[in-house]
Amino acid sequence: MITVEEAQQRILESMVHYQPRPVTVSLAEAVGRVLAQAVVSDLDIPPFDNSSMDGFALLSSAVIDAKADHPVDLEVAATISAGHPLSDLSIAPHQCYRIMTGAPVPKGVDSVIQVEWTEPHGDWVRITRPVPPGLNIRYKGSDIADQTEVLTPGTVLTPALIGIMATLGRTHCAVFRRPSIAIVSTGDELVDPSLTPGPGQIRNSNAYALYAAVLQAGGDPVLIPHAPDDLHLIIERLNDAARYDLILSSGGVSVGDFDLVKTALQQHGTQNFWRVNMKPGKPVAFGHYRDTPFFGLPGNPVSALVTFELFVRPMIRQMQGDFRWPRLVLQLPLLEDFTEVADRRHYVRCQIRRDSLGALGVIPSPDQGSAIQTSWLQADGLMVIPEHTGPWLRGATVAVMLLHS
Amino acid sequence: MITVEEAQQRILESMVHYQPRPVTVSLAEAVGRVLAQAVVSDLDIPPFDNSSMDGFALLSSAVIDAKADHPVDLEVAATISAGHPLSDLSIAPHQCYRIMTGAPVPKGVDSVIQVEWTEPHGDWVRITRPVPPGLNIRYKGSDIADQTEVLTPGTVLTPALIGIMATLGRTHCAVFRRPSIAIVSTGDELVDPSLTPGPGQIRNSNAYALYAAVLQAGGDPVLIPHAPDDLHLIIERLNDAARYDLILSSGGVSVGDFDLVKTALQQHGTQNFWRVNMKPGKPVAFGHYRDTPFFGLPGNPVSALVTFELFVRPMIRQMQGDFRWPRLVLQLPLLEDFTEVADRRHYVRCQIRRDSLGALGVIPSPDQGSAIQTSWLQADGLMVIPEHTGPWLRGATVAVMLLHS
Repeated sequence: MITVEEAQQRILESMVHYQPRPVTVSLAEAVGRVLAQAVVSDLDIPPFDNSSMDGFALLSSAVIDAKADHPVDLEVAATISAGHPLSDLSIAPHQCYRIMTGAPVPKGVDSVIQVEWTEPHGDWVRITRPVPPGLNIRYKGSDIADQTEVLTPGTVLTPALIGIMATLGRTHCAVFRRPSIAIVSTGDELVDPSLTPGPGQIRNSNAYALYAAVLQAGGDPVLIPHAPDDLHLIIERLNDAARYDLILSSGGVSVGDFDLVKTALQQHGTQNFWRVNMKPGKPVAFGHYRDTPFFGLPGNPVSALVTFELFVRPMIRQMQGDFRWPRLVLQLPLLEDFTEVADRRHYVRCQIRRDSLGALGVIPSPDQGSAIQTSWLQADGLMVIPEHTGPWLRGATVAVMLLHS
Repeated sequence: MITVEEAQQRILESMVHYQPRPVTVSLAEAVGRVLAQAVVSDLDIPPFDNSSMDGFALLSSAVIDAKADHPVDLEVAATISAGHPLSDLSIAPHQCYRIMTGAPVPKGVDSVIQVEWTEPHGDWVRITRPVPPGLNIRYKGSDIADQTEVLTPGTVLTPALIGIMATLGRTHCAVFRRPSIAIVSTGDELVDPSLTPGPGQIRNSNAYALYAAVLQAGGDPVLIPHAPDDLHLIIERLNDAARYDLILSSGGVSVGDFDLVKTALQQHGTQNFWRVNMKPGKPVAFGHYRDTPFFGLPGNPVSALVTFELFVRPMIRQMQGDFRWPRLVLQLPLLEDFTEVADRRHYVRCQIRRDSLGALGVIPSPDQGSAIQTSWLQADGLMVIPEHTGPWLRGATVAVMLLHS
């Protein structure tokens, strides 16, 4: 059995030649998408020196001796509001401009004193302290210089970065296309959630959980109609699924006689690996069905989502050009004992809590069985417990992979 | 000036009578939404005792003395595959069933031994070790008992919880409607990103950054057409915006003569607070325009997004029934000095990094000016620096609010 890291490496190596395709979206659609182009500024930002305060623009040398008991009175020659630059006019040293936040700072002055520090009276303003040159001025190009490469391909677009693109006049941008992910369900025991299961049957939950997980990973999920345990039908469904960028199947890859997905993969595909030294999720298969990457996830609902997180999500992220997919991993103290010792790497659903002093700690969810779906209730992450270690007692530090970061 | 906490409290108190409305969505649309109903199981999960392994179902008492040098051979009476329960038949103690993962465990046996631990030969299987009763059996109702309230209103739906709903036969569910958020832009200096700014003008970035931030917070953003600095037109726009659940305006709420949004609010609304003791973002206003909650965010792009994060996002989350909106706050060591001392609470854009030993630490982004949009590049969170504290030296522990958790 290979390690989780080796499995991840093999998966990502298998797609070194995969070229994510760019699509153009408007700024309103771009949040969360992965930028497929560089964004180079074609102007200085800000485009002109401007005031960061409401106040008075003046020559700092004219008020260098100003004090409370020796004020300097300046004449207000004009008012400059945002969006309304003055045509060229010059002022004398005993004059100043009233200026609004964001308004252009004209030539002939070198500083802005905020209105709160002044005593305006009519067309004059009293200044009672000196100000340094440059005070409250945002200089042209101080945020972004003309011709700077501001954003690089592979950047995940946050609201702030969308603001930067708007500032630079980009109303549309190229992002990487969402990969299309075919979700295949097989097995005589599964019925659609809309149906009442017959004796020995259960409802198909993995298809819908994986659909949601694909959406959250940025993929475009497609549900392939369910196939019963019939090799011919399963191959038909897989042929359909192979038209998409990636196939996700769950169940049917264990050691049982009815694990026909495995048979179909043997006949029409290649298997890269089949088992990973982890718990839950050992029987996870990866390979290609025809030419399409294929994951055979375990049938147990918990195992399916844990293996999705560790193997499928990284692939879906990289398929859309995002190489910064690893989750944040924290080192946190256990707030309760975790006594189970496993011979495989154990990914334990857990909740992050504050202890009585307000420090963060971690509590494993109560029942870690791979069929116990309720162990996900309120789960914040996965504790990563190395194989053959434990028992881990309260206060010991464990690694916690955040799931919602 | 009030504190950030007092401002948050006033905002959330103002909406105690707000009733989020439920809408019905399909499971495929439900991920990330906030559940508006309780989900009570109407069956046991699993609905029948079933095998967690491929193996042989047997009576544990029949193999109690089994050893490698004293094996017990059992006759395989039948094969039970998933989805195909046996009609009632009984077996003798020297018999067993071959059973597949997920298949119902019939009456008359009490344990399943995994196939890897057995030596099958034809219609017989050799058992060389004893097994305890209950081994590899998932008992009816062990995950969810009939009539259990599994999910409560206010739960954010993750892929795992959508799987639980599918298991329980819910193909649709009630979630809270996304609140509609009107985004108002004013100011003679702003032009649409599609246009080339004239002298003294800049492109309107806040509208698009806020649009994206609203989407990420789960709201439904609406861009109201831009208004120049004309009180009559601004009131017209605000009247239009008041038809939505919440109004977001940026700029126009400072002390300048052209801050007409403030004037419009004074004439047609109520102001709850106007300034908060924070940096960036001091001039943030909250109140109601007519009967609609209103935020007047600062015009500086950094300030607009920081105040959105601290004040608007919590409101949008609670408007859709999510009361678990606080971000995760980590205590992390500074990897560089942060020497700026402010008389207001300082929210500092920062990047989380690993130090040379692999431990997490935090680096403040270089330029913290409130107009420096590029300070958001690669930002992972906001350092929260208490007022009048500092300088903070490398190695000191600071609070970091994660932005993408």
